[in-house]
Order: sequence, then structure tokens, then C-alpha cells
Amino acid sequence: VADDLRIVLVTPRNPLNIGAAARAMSNFGFTRMRLVNPYDVAFKEARSAVRSQYILETAEVFPTVGEAVADCSLVVGTTAGGRRDLHLPLYRLEPAGELLREHLGADQATALLFGSEKFGLSNEDMSYCQWLLRIPSREEHGSMNLGQAVAICLYELRRDAQAATQRFAPTEMATGQDYERFTALLLEALSHAGYVNPITSESTELKVRRLVRRLGLPAADMDMWLGIWRQILWKVRQGE
Amino acid sequence: VADDLRIVLVTPRNPLNIGAAARAMSNFGFTRMRLVNPYDVAFKEARSAVRSQYILETAEVFPTVGEAVADCSLVVGTTAGGRRDLHLPLYRLEPAGELLREHLGADQATALLFGSEKFGLSNEDMSYCQWLLRIPSREEHGSMNLGQAVAICLYELRRDAQAATQRFAPTEMATGQDYERFTALLLEALSHAGYVNPITSESTELKVRRLVRRLGLPAADMDMWLGIWRQILWKVRQGE
Repeated sequence: VADDLRIVLVTPRNPLNIGAAARAMSNFGFTRMRLVNPYDVAFKEARSAVRSQYILETAEVFPTVGEAVADCSLVVGTTAGGRRDLHLPLYRLEPAGELLREHLGADQATALLFGSEKFGLSNEDMSYCQWLLRIPSREEHGSMNLGQAVAICLYELRRDAQAATQRFAPTEMATGQDYERFTALLLEALSHAGYVNPITSESTELKVRRLVRRLGLPAADMDMWLGIWRQILWKVRQGE
Repeated sequence: VADDLRIVLVTPRNPLNIGAAARAMSNFGFTRMRLVNPYDVAFKEARSAVRSQYILETAEVFPTVGEAVADCSLVVGTTAGGRRDLHLPLYRLEPAGELLREHLGADQATALLFGSEKFGLSNEDMSYCQWLLRIPSREEHGSMNLGQAVAICLYELRRDAQAATQRFAPTEMATGQDYERFTALLLEALSHAGYVNPITSESTELKVRRLVRRLGLPAADMDMWLGIWRQILWKVRQGE
């Protein structure tokens, strides 16, 4: 499926950007880069892409956009502009990502076009596109760095909304019993330290218990906390 | 709300990356950059950030992470690793973005930390964090370019799931009547051109009608299409 996506850079000028695009492709598991009429054939220099060299080595170079997208059943252009007359449907990246994922999910060859750093895609480049997408940057400063634009589009394709409630390492929180042991040791230390006024001690106990419950103690930290309190208790008792 | 987010770059080494981070901030409408012990004080050179100069000019420099996050009630670190013992909850960017948006939505000062290009955040840097986030890059090549990582995180914060069905410029499609006029002219041209066999012409008509309905004609294109067919009709009649 990832092999069905061609990242097509049209007349890129800066080898660093080609390298950055390749790195983002490697980060997100896409492999097929195409270059249309790259400004400098020295694109293989692309330095920031050490671990993405395999992408640059297999990148294909075409003289025209038409040839670069000839085998693709969906051709999508990227643009920073939202105002000029584009003659094409223009989607924000969020819904565009959904449409691209659907097409790729059906194993259909798809091209995603990025224009040159300075001018973006020309009207002629866009005439090869079925539709356009726009990263939701500010209207006042919409134009993005090429490598960053590629990275954001590929992130959107890899984005997993289902992961929205999932952690890599969920933190198990302390139990009520743990909180109670923590509270008891703290109260004992406070008592020895003269913090607790015997007359108001019942309300102090409630206040301290609530204070501790608000802490949010990870279960794994309990042993260290209990050790800390025992040590402090030992010390405050010594002072008596 | 956007003003509540501090983008903190810890010991960044490459002015181009600082510039790229500033540009992404400007693209997505964030303004407060902080730099901890930047490798080269020449960070103001940051060239790729012409239209983001205002961010670099107001960037604050701190000697330590502790000072850079002193006024923040939530401090979140970014990491490419998912395996080493991080001692902190680690979220994927998707749910992390949700948590960050909630915090920022409550006007709470928040810091998002990015480590140096080469080493990422150190264990000491991370000890100032409440939790960590990870961009869902491939395990085999997780380490991202600094500017790209900043851009992706800020895109996630600006991402609008509600936009998922929204287009900038919805394409109004042709009506049934439009399709019928298109079909009638095409059939007439085919008839003059000798394509339609009179014996099977009824089934041909159905086939052609279905063919045309599958096209997906934008309403705005109808005039041009009707003109094209009339011209073709004129020509095929001439040949008779």
C-alpha cells in the first residue's frame, strides 16, 4: 500500500530539501520518490538523508510532470494558496488524507505532487491533478518549507485516529491503600514535627488526606515514597 | 491560547533547523520560541526563516531546561525512542495533541521540548517533563529532522478533525439535465460518425448514457463541453 504512493518533487532546487523529503519518507515508511526536472542533478548529494540513502538511490527522474504521473490513477497536487482561481477542488489536508488513504487502500497507484521551493506548482503542473490539497497553515504565512510539507502530509497518511486513547506505557496509579499508607506516614511525620495542632488535628487529617489524594501517585513510585517518609520519620523522631 | 505554548529547543546545533522550526511556528501561528544553551549563538542567522524573523527576534535564551520551563504548568518532551526505560508516560502524538490542546485551551502555560539534532533530549532534560510524546515514525528509523518534527507537532495541534468533510471549494456537479444534453449530443455525433448500429441503437444509447453518467461532470464545465460537442457535430455533418 505504501508502495503505491509516489512522492513527486517538481523542479526542486535545494538538495537539502530533497534529502529532508527522503528522510521523512523513510521515517513514515514510504519508498518511491520521483523527481521532475530537478534543478541540480547533484540531488544525490542530499546530505541530511544518511539513513534514507536507499530512497534517493532508487528515485526516478523524469523530464515532465506528465511522464512522472503516467502510471497513476490519482494525481493530487499540494498548494499553499487558497485564493487564486485554481480550477480544481481544494481540500484541507485532514479530509484529503482520508481520500488518499482510501485510494491507497485499494492498491491504486497515487501521485502526490510538491512544487518547487520558490514557486510551488505551476498552473500547467496542476492541470495534471484531479484535485489539490492544502496544509492548514495561516493564510498570512501559508508557504511552507518543502521538507516540512512532505513530512506533514506523510504524517497525516500514517496518522491513526484509533490511537487517540492509547498510550505506549500506561501509568498504573497507586491504590487507595497506597494513598492511605502515604497519608499515615506524612501525618506521623507532621505530628512529630509539631505541625499538627492536637485541638484541630481531625480537620488537619482530612486536609492532608485530600492533599495527598490530589497528588496523582504512580503505583510504581510508592516504594520510593514510603522509603522517603520512613527516613524522614526516623530523623524527626531523633530530634525529640 | 497559541501564546501559551512555548516551543523549547534544547541545545540545537544547526541554525537551519532553528530557522525551520521558526518557520513552522509562523506557518501555524505560534510565536514563543525558547532556546536552551544553543550550540551557536549565531542562531539569528537562521536563514530559511525570512518571514519568521519576528519569532527569532523575540526568542528567549536560557542556560538550563529548568529555567526555560519555570513558568509552565505542563512540560512535555518529545522522543523518537520507544524502548528505553523512559520513567515517564509516553503517548503517541495523536492523543498527546489532544492533551496539549486541552491544557492550552484552559490558558495554561505549556512547554513542548525538542532535543538536539544528534542526541535528542537527555535523561536530565526529561526529568523536567510530566510526560513524553512520540511522532509515530517507523521503529526502524524513528529519528526525525528537528524542523520536520516541530512542524508535525504544530500541525497536529492545529489539526481540525471537524474539517474532515469540508472542502475549501466544493465542486458543484452537473445535473441530470446537463448529463442528458451531453449524452444527446454525443449520441448524435456518434450516429453521424457511423458508430451507432441502427439495429442495436437502443442498447447503445443505454450504454452511452451510463458511460457519460460515470464521468462525474462538474457543472461549471458544461458550457465548454456543449461547445465542444456542437463543434464536433458541425464537423461530422460536413463530412456527410
